[in-house]
Amino acid sequence: MCQTHQSHVLSVSHAKANFERTTIERRALRPHDILIDIQFSGICHSDIHSAFDEWGGGIFPMVPGHEITGIIEAVGDAVTRFKIGDRVGVGCFVDSCGSCEYCQNGDEQYCMKGVVQTYNNLDYDGEPTYGGYSQKIVVTERFVVSIPDQLSLDVASPLLCAGITTYSPLKHWNVGPGKKVAIVGMGGLGHVAIQFARALGAEVTVLSRSLNKKEEALSFGAKDYFATSDPDTFKTLAGQYDVILNTVSANINVDAYLSLLRVDGTLVNVGAPPKPDQFHVFSLITGRRSIAGSLVGGIQETQEMLDFAAAHNIAPQIEVINANQVDEAYERVLKSDVRYRFVIDISTL
Amino acid sequence: MCQTHQSHVLSVSHAKANFERTTIERRALRPHDILIDIQFSGICHSDIHSAFDEWGGGIFPMVPGHEITGIIEAVGDAVTRFKIGDRVGVGCFVDSCGSCEYCQNGDEQYCMKGVVQTYNNLDYDGEPTYGGYSQKIVVTERFVVSIPDQLSLDVASPLLCAGITTYSPLKHWNVGPGKKVAIVGMGGLGHVAIQFARALGAEVTVLSRSLNKKEEALSFGAKDYFATSDPDTFKTLAGQYDVILNTVSANINVDAYLSLLRVDGTLVNVGAPPKPDQFHVFSLITGRRSIAGSLVGGIQETQEMLDFAAAHNIAPQIEVINANQVDEAYERVLKSDVRYRFVIDISTL
Repeated sequence: MCQTHQSHVLSVSHAKANFERTTIERRALRPHDILIDIQFSGICHSDIHSAFDEWGGGIFPMVPGHEITGIIEAVGDAVTRFKIGDRVGVGCFVDSCGSCEYCQNGDEQYCMKGVVQTYNNLDYDGEPTYGGYSQKIVVTERFVVSIPDQLSLDVASPLLCAGITTYSPLKHWNVGPGKKVAIVGMGGLGHVAIQFARALGAEVTVLSRSLNKKEEALSFGAKDYFATSDPDTFKTLAGQYDVILNTVSANINVDAYLSLLRVDGTLVNVGAPPKPDQFHVFSLITGRRSIAGSLVGGIQETQEMLDFAAAHNIAPQIEVINANQVDEAYERVLKSDVRYRFVIDISTL
Repeated sequence: MCQTHQSHVLSVSHAKANFERTTIERRALRPHDILIDIQFSGICHSDIHSAFDEWGGGIFPMVPGHEITGIIEAVGDAVTRFKIGDRVGVGCFVDSCGSCEYCQNGDEQYCMKGVVQTYNNLDYDGEPTYGGYSQKIVVTERFVVSIPDQLSLDVASPLLCAGITTYSPLKHWNVGPGKKVAIVGMGGLGHVAIQFARALGAEVTVLSRSLNKKEEALSFGAKDYFATSDPDTFKTLAGQYDVILNTVSANINVDAYLSLLRVDGTLVNVGAPPKPDQFHVFSLITGRRSIAGSLVGGIQETQEMLDFAAAHNIAPQIEVINANQVDEAYERVLKSDVRYRFVIDISTL
């Protein structure tokens, strides 16, 4: 148990470099650690922001990936909840203090000490974290979730970020029967959000730039679909929605979207554009409306989300690629040329 | 009952004109109407915005005033809830459709047909409304509230706008025992908000530009007081508050105030600056925070607020003026030279 674990990885040596195959050492197992033989790793848009160092502070070489599914290969002496051979997942975080009120409340993502991100971060020992574009990963069991039998490991992969990032706010803002929800953007997050909102019992409208993806949105469970490039959309839909979930990371016309909310409605953002947004307070006051934001979700909630997805046949639509195709996949993501999530088959690494 | 009611008023003939004494006719009583002999009328900052036509669309001549207290002089044939001699109040609204879901839910301020404002508005017959700088007013009984015996009519007057505008959001966002609340701005609204938040059981901090009003804030029930002109304030108080109630109508550094909120905290605005505000979505996402707005409050809630104020000895601090002093009072409000609300003694009109 005291030996480290060599792992082939895909890494970038500096911002915007191409991926190359290298090797890292995963730490020797501590009592509560789990060694996972990674099978699939999804490509999230934030992997690109990170690998391109668009948010600054990037730690290189970098191994992205926080939509990880695999099989347990070994467990530390104190691990009780998992055993070798279990099908498991790891999402955006691999550690938190565990004792602050937010951790205690299952909101590890808001840990007061600062949650440790799965890659491009330093763990509490000051060691860089490396993500899922990797054969193996070692994670403390508190941050490992079970993949239900009904979900294949490739399809389950994007749920670890895109899934929980949309499920958590839908639950937090009480989306359910009798509620009308608009999903802004129909990409990796949006196409999963439609399925969750529908399964939670809400009536779902998709707001996307063009009408290109309308048929697909309806097949995912949307009732309506409107193009935001058509100014009539904002007149037609005024005052309609209880919740608008904005999955787009670009700046939007906040006032225009607020005008689509009912009294007490909330515009929830899960992507953060680098530049500030503008709004008139008047848009809020006239309907007791809110602008909010939400970050991923907690670990217990991630497990709940996976179980919910399994129970309701919710599945990201994926394109599985091999380890040589990641640079090309990044280019295609930037052109929105993916329906709807790339997943790397780690056996090709 | 079919005769109109002559009323001396203070009116402005055009934007920024001085007040002059004129006469208007209040409508003959309809079955549900109440004729009120006005005793006191508070001066709200929005009276000045309106009389100066700073929001546009002003209807002149204008009689401002929506913090009205008085004695019932006559009632329509169908009035059952009130009788001649009752001590009553009228706030910011004098009619709403009564049938939409928001009216049915006691949120008349968000009426889908559009609530009729007490002055500078057209009623549903297309007649201009005239406010409380007036000897008499006729209002349908649904928009009349009782002033509890414990409250004098002069002190009660500002509660009809400043009171309900702050009480309603404090209740809506669950301010109570165990919650920490910051009140931004210590003027007409802020000094009442402190008292309500304290009486609801919360721990109250006041954030004001300078330390000038610290002793008074503590006397109203605040536990702490910090100057927002001191940059250390925003470091010291980071992540502290469940609710920040912003009573200031000027643009603020939204991100700075958001940084003072705990996870799931809300920055509630009750004043609307004419220019847009800016914020980074990141400030919301990192703590599931919200920016919200709230408009006055409903009629049933206004009665609840008055009863609560009476039960908890909550009292606006006022300066009673006579009808000749209104122009001067406006100048002093603009210089923040009032502690904390002017109230016109209508017997001097």
